[in-house]
Amino acid sequence: MSSEAFVTLATNDGYALGALVVAQSLRKVGTQRQLVVMISRNISNIIRQTLETSFDEIVVVEELNSHDEEHLRLLSRPELGVTFTKINCWLLEKYSKCVFLDADVVVLQNIDDLFEREEISAAPDAGWPDCFNSGVFVYKPSKETFTKLLQFANQQDASFDGGDQGLLNAFFSNWRSADISRHLPFTYNVTSNTFYSYVPAVTQFRNDIRVVHFAGALKPWQLTYNPQNEQLSGNLGGQQTIQREFLLAWWKIMYERVWPQLSKHNQNQLHGGFTGSLLNYGSLTNEQGVQAGSAAHRRAWESGHVDYHGRDSFTNIQEQLQKNLGQQQQPYHPSQQRQVTPPKSTPASANTTQQQQQPTGETTSSNTGASGVLKTTTTTTVETQEKK
Amino acid sequence: MSSEAFVTLATNDGYALGALVVAQSLRKVGTQRQLVVMISRNISNIIRQTLETSFDEIVVVEELNSHDEEHLRLLSRPELGVTFTKINCWLLEKYSKCVFLDADVVVLQNIDDLFEREEISAAPDAGWPDCFNSGVFVYKPSKETFTKLLQFANQQDASFDGGDQGLLNAFFSNWRSADISRHLPFTYNVTSNTFYSYVPAVTQFRNDIRVVHFAGALKPWQLTYNPQNEQLSGNLGGQQTIQREFLLAWWKIMYERVWPQLSKHNQNQLHGGFTGSLLNYGSLTNEQGVQAGSAAHRRAWESGHVDYHGRDSFTNIQEQLQKNLGQQQQPYHPSQQRQVTPPKSTPASANTTQQQQQPTGETTSSNTGASGVLKTTTTTTVETQEKK
Repeated sequence: MSSEAFVTLATNDGYALGALVVAQSLRKVGTQRQLVVMISRNISNIIRQTLETSFDEIVVVEELNSHDEEHLRLLSRPELGVTFTKINCWLLEKYSKCVFLDADVVVLQNIDDLFEREEISAAPDAGWPDCFNSGVFVYKPSKETFTKLLQFANQQDASFDGGDQGLLNAFFSNWRSADISRHLPFTYNVTSNTFYSYVPAVTQFRNDIRVVHFAGALKPWQLTYNPQNEQLSGNLGGQQTIQREFLLAWWKIMYERVWPQLSKHNQNQLHGGFTGSLLNYGSLTNEQGVQAGSAAHRRAWESGHVDYHGRDSFTNIQEQLQKNLGQQQQPYHPSQQRQVTPPKSTPASANTTQQQQQPTGETTSSNTGASGVLKTTTTTTVETQEKK
Repeated sequence: MSSEAFVTLATNDGYALGALVVAQSLRKVGTQRQLVVMISRNISNIIRQTLETSFDEIVVVEELNSHDEEHLRLLSRPELGVTFTKINCWLLEKYSKCVFLDADVVVLQNIDDLFEREEISAAPDAGWPDCFNSGVFVYKPSKETFTKLLQFANQQDASFDGGDQGLLNAFFSNWRSADISRHLPFTYNVTSNTFYSYVPAVTQFRNDIRVVHFAGALKPWQLTYNPQNEQLSGNLGGQQTIQREFLLAWWKIMYERVWPQLSKHNQNQLHGGFTGSLLNYGSLTNEQGVQAGSAAHRRAWESGHVDYHGRDSFTNIQEQLQKNLGQQQQPYHPSQQRQVTPPKSTPASANTTQQQQQPTGETTSSNTGASGVLKTTTTTTVETQEKK
């Protein structure tokens, strides 16, 4: 079992918060498998440190190299960038079998039985159920498969939806008709659009739901959570009651299991305390930025697009914090640093000591494949001492 | 093959128009199977006569009898009435195998290969794909199965959605995991909600689509069709281009293959002519009613709820027609009889001769079953001479 792992992917801070909830929700339901997160280099330090305490392994995925003709040809189709990032999961050959989970899911019940399934096992997509949804799938890491996927992706129109789901469905094209055992129950990947389209079924099978997938435009980390009354606020218009409850489930894990660690790293870096009450993207990432708080800026935060080197640089945040310390607490506004307190379950002493990291190795693998389309470097950076 | 049949169901005039399109769309793609329609007694005469020329067999399904305690108990759950009506299809034992099609589908490509499948074969429901959609399914008629279904339906909460889909999924509960060959491709039952949720897939697999299922609130017969410019009007707000095209496909079959027969029966009964240009529910059914044309009245027509004994009685319609004959043509209003012309492809001579019907038998079967919950009478009324 130690050679089996859950794998997720975070390409910005928003999804990284999601990845933290994925990890903690898996630990909460008692998984016996390793937890791996693939990240791109733009994840902020505070979040990366927290990822290191939550996951057993972090794999840094390099950006596409644009220095040769083949790469440029690929880069003329920028939408495939994220696709290529995701299929890097096939390079994790130290694991005999893996389950990939998108970072916008929350695990409600143990799903370790998924490792009894074979590649590729996935649940039907509620939009077009002859396709599987690529938010949850069982696979076998293999450089050979990775190379074939790259070659396949290099064909024109390889992905009918411009993303990894279209690509993987085209590659594993016999999923629909070959083997019923590779059809995961829908309860292992209940996408949020379902909450609107067939409410009686959601109600009927609700207790069977193991994984909820916030696949729509609204991500849980775009909301604000009040732990005092356990209420959510934000862009909740039109959300069904049942979806609100799942969003709340996500936030409870965030508040009880993720936020204490985030807060700890915040304090270590900022040498200050947080004594507010509401949690939102800004309070969690400490990346609210300092300029204006324009609507565009807020949207950028909410989708996890943070300008680390300019508008949202760490120096600027520190300056803004100094200013905010003299202000009264006000209703949330993007330009204002929200103050938060750790939940009561967090030992106070944990707030002052940074977790020690123990780098255990760095491996680099490059792939040029038959098509020679891409060099991909994976870097195993740390294994944390803390295993929960 | 003669012992295999497509079966559909019409419980009001709106769905009966749909059934006519189902039949003609099947004939257009060259089906080699028999066509059967189950109808309730409230279908108007004009439509019923047209059904008789389009289908090989009409089965009149009786209303539930409320004269004993068991029936009253069932009738306290009125939503099961239509459910029971649909499962009457299992009583058609003269056929060795059947494919049931909801009356709100249109067949775009030949689907006779469905008869190679076994009971119960169906496509996943796009709302909750662990359930099959009960709009298209392969089954084996059997009184024994019918009895078991009735017994099952008699349990409290047998149907989680209050309809036949919940009931049939609960009854055939191993569909999800037992046999991949019983999972029909989604292209055999593409429900209209799909047009919104995963457009790239619809686009990608569009040429594979064999059956479109207008499962949402908007039914094709609620729109108005202008055959001169092949345009639709009505409540089309928010419809995707691709859905408009499928709605148009439905209307082309209605105009070219169904309407000429409807028009013929209209003329025979009304002793008058139709010389307008637009087709809609009123012009097709000759059941626009005569009072007021209130919004509520229009809604009632559009959903097929026609008051045959009062407001919309035949006598009243005749009176209204006499009045309308002296009026100028005006934009559509529910209280006004819309005038229509036959398409050019229709031989003019066909408009004056009523098709001869040849009643071939009447059979009555009653079922009391182990539970004795229901007596169901099916009446085989006619077989038409005209086979296309």
